[in-house]
Amino acid sequence: MDERMRVLTDAFVGVEGGKISYLAQVPPKEQPGKIIEGTGMVLMPGLINTHTHLPMTILRGCADDYPLAVWLNDHIFPREERLDDRTVKAAALLGIAECLRFGITSVSDMYDHCGAIAEAVAQSGIKANLSRGTTLFDPETFDFETFPATRELVALKEQWHGYDNGRIQVEASIHAEYTSSYELWDALAEYAANEGIGMQIHLSETKAEHEACKERYGLTPAQLLDCHNVFLPRTTAAHCVWLEPEDMALLARRKVTAVHCPVSNLKLASGRADVIAMVKAGMNVALGTDGASSNNNLDLFEEIKAAALLAKSRSMDPKALPAQAALMMATVCGARAQRREKECGMIKPGMDADLILLDFTQPHLMPCHDVMSHLCYTASGHDVIMTMVRGKILYAAGKYTTIDLDAVVRELAEHAMPTVFLEKTE
Amino acid sequence: MDERMRVLTDAFVGVEGGKISYLAQVPPKEQPGKIIEGTGMVLMPGLINTHTHLPMTILRGCADDYPLAVWLNDHIFPREERLDDRTVKAAALLGIAECLRFGITSVSDMYDHCGAIAEAVAQSGIKANLSRGTTLFDPETFDFETFPATRELVALKEQWHGYDNGRIQVEASIHAEYTSSYELWDALAEYAANEGIGMQIHLSETKAEHEACKERYGLTPAQLLDCHNVFLPRTTAAHCVWLEPEDMALLARRKVTAVHCPVSNLKLASGRADVIAMVKAGMNVALGTDGASSNNNLDLFEEIKAAALLAKSRSMDPKALPAQAALMMATVCGARAQRREKECGMIKPGMDADLILLDFTQPHLMPCHDVMSHLCYTASGHDVIMTMVRGKILYAAGKYTTIDLDAVVRELAEHAMPTVFLEKTE
Repeated sequence: MDERMRVLTDAFVGVEGGKISYLAQVPPKEQPGKIIEGTGMVLMPGLINTHTHLPMTILRGCADDYPLAVWLNDHIFPREERLDDRTVKAAALLGIAECLRFGITSVSDMYDHCGAIAEAVAQSGIKANLSRGTTLFDPETFDFETFPATRELVALKEQWHGYDNGRIQVEASIHAEYTSSYELWDALAEYAANEGIGMQIHLSETKAEHEACKERYGLTPAQLLDCHNVFLPRTTAAHCVWLEPEDMALLARRKVTAVHCPVSNLKLASGRADVIAMVKAGMNVALGTDGASSNNNLDLFEEIKAAALLAKSRSMDPKALPAQAALMMATVCGARAQRREKECGMIKPGMDADLILLDFTQPHLMPCHDVMSHLCYTASGHDVIMTMVRGKILYAAGKYTTIDLDAVVRELAEHAMPTVFLEKTE
Repeated sequence: MDERMRVLTDAFVGVEGGKISYLAQVPPKEQPGKIIEGTGMVLMPGLINTHTHLPMTILRGCADDYPLAVWLNDHIFPREERLDDRTVKAAALLGIAECLRFGITSVSDMYDHCGAIAEAVAQSGIKANLSRGTTLFDPETFDFETFPATRELVALKEQWHGYDNGRIQVEASIHAEYTSSYELWDALAEYAANEGIGMQIHLSETKAEHEACKERYGLTPAQLLDCHNVFLPRTTAAHCVWLEPEDMALLARRKVTAVHCPVSNLKLASGRADVIAMVKAGMNVALGTDGASSNNNLDLFEEIKAAALLAKSRSMDPKALPAQAALMMATVCGARAQRREKECGMIKPGMDADLILLDFTQPHLMPCHDVMSHLCYTASGHDVIMTMVRGKILYAAGKYTTIDLDAVVRELAEHAMPTVFLEKTE
């Protein structure tokens, strides 16, 4: 997949100093230092997961098939309250290991204990746009300087923004309209705009929250937040299931990326986002797995397929969102969402060598009439056999080069699981 | 998963003479001849894929993102006309290899050149209910004894029905209401009832076909076919997307199994079957991948997840079709559809040892709070590391014991692909 989204057969890709240095269908003249043989394989840009909550791997499968309120209030929130930095770091490393195994080379994350997540990202070699998901339920006492979550954001920004030549980007985050109020929106919008950092938000995920906002304010969440300049920083808005046509036009003007999370939206019965309408309105649409506890995995290839299938089903048109368009959402559009479009998302000389290799010699990928079709409809993250970020192999054939998975598993068993799941004996 | 659909931890399963001989949470007293260690693994009943067209693997991905009519008439039918027995056998073996790799131990198949498919099934060790999909466009000349497709059915039945102690079952098949007429329905219904064999059919897959039938006959396809005793033999009806409440009540009385094919229905934009209503009406609902060219793989774990997600989305209720119910559709309900409910679909002493082993030690399956949840929402067919039918290991860790995959690939390259895809030079 080159910059024109073509499939090149019998091509040669050179990597030097972490960058793509060569792309052609004839071998380079210079003899490379190391050769990775790709016969029967497909090399493509690493996938970009533009909405997740990495540490939620620890809550994966602990509460399924519940209504949203019960799920959140009785199962997720009480356990999230028990999280500490050690637990979050271990759970984030587990999530990153899963991402790398499934061919994801960059993530946008919104969570808590972000310093611990940043440490996991730094160690692992993956790229990440990290944000501290912020709620505000008691606006009277809010002060940006002293409020814990905004203090954590500022500290995170000071310590980690731009780390390793931009591998980590820190972004502001308003958790959602319905979990905060204008004091937070104004302060965070101003902070993010002044610092030149991005913004992450959950937007119109459920019909209930969308309608309640209209009821309270006479405006949709998108319209309301726009009044508070929330979209002045480059924003990724997760879900966007219930956007109205006016919202889409507004968000397109503000260059907001909609992050489509089809599997999570189906699992929580939130609805089906109108991806085709968002694209037609001029919005950038990227893909996200959401957290592992509402999916329940981080295999973005599932989202690629689900996005293509849901668009067809929703519009009753089998031509809707063809394979190439769905693949672009997970690559080029994801890079744009992360403001990394000059850095990754395609195989182009000068860009970072964020590359993944898929094994196309297995029965389910034979015969191969159309590589794009196979990548979208047939392949799985399990077919990824090598994941490289900036020219460095982070995962290959079941092995990690930067993550000691056994140590992570031990830390989960000895510290994290008892912290989160064992009831206190008093 | 035992007969009460429980998850047993630290359990021991004995296999003897192709049957499950032991199931308990204490080791058997007798020392077994061979031990398969299952620490960190999940053993479950093999999955049952109750609607597929195995040889369509060769057409996988050759024409995606087209409207149904263009897809069928311009791409699928012209290529299917070129199929010969050699091609079908190779493509069926490829499809069976994929099924085994993804943990499927029994399939219901509807296609052409069924003798070649039966040979592939016989060789591979998989179980199959095979049917010759039959259309009738020229009823004036129809004669059951001489019509090619019904002759093929009779020959297939004579040669293969009951093969290997019932491993192969032959069934009658009416391709669909809209591709045939009452002369065929009457004859096949009578034949199947007399011979005591089952029936396979596509039913109300698209809104267009469902409405056109009502327009022509004043009856739904289900009602019309019932007038011709089509459901007198035990029938599996694929798709059932547009069934009406009266259809569901009727089909429940006739003990018809609806085969839900969620991925295919989404991909071809056929609609979303109302699985919850079918279950409430008393119908048996099983799962099918459909052919590889409208899916585009045979990983039934995708259907398990898609069925659970679609039911939630369609009903806007996250509690709808919980994990266990979706898993039962792929096991117990599938066995019932194939009239193999006394033979397989659960882990129970006396039943055939149709068993699969999944590796739960990978990052995406950690931690494991709930095995059923992981099997439904997190796992993939790629997690299957061993597939056994009647106590015989047919697939383990990438290797097949009955299929020479290299030979199949050679046959595809040298004979099948040129036959189907190369234009004739004249």
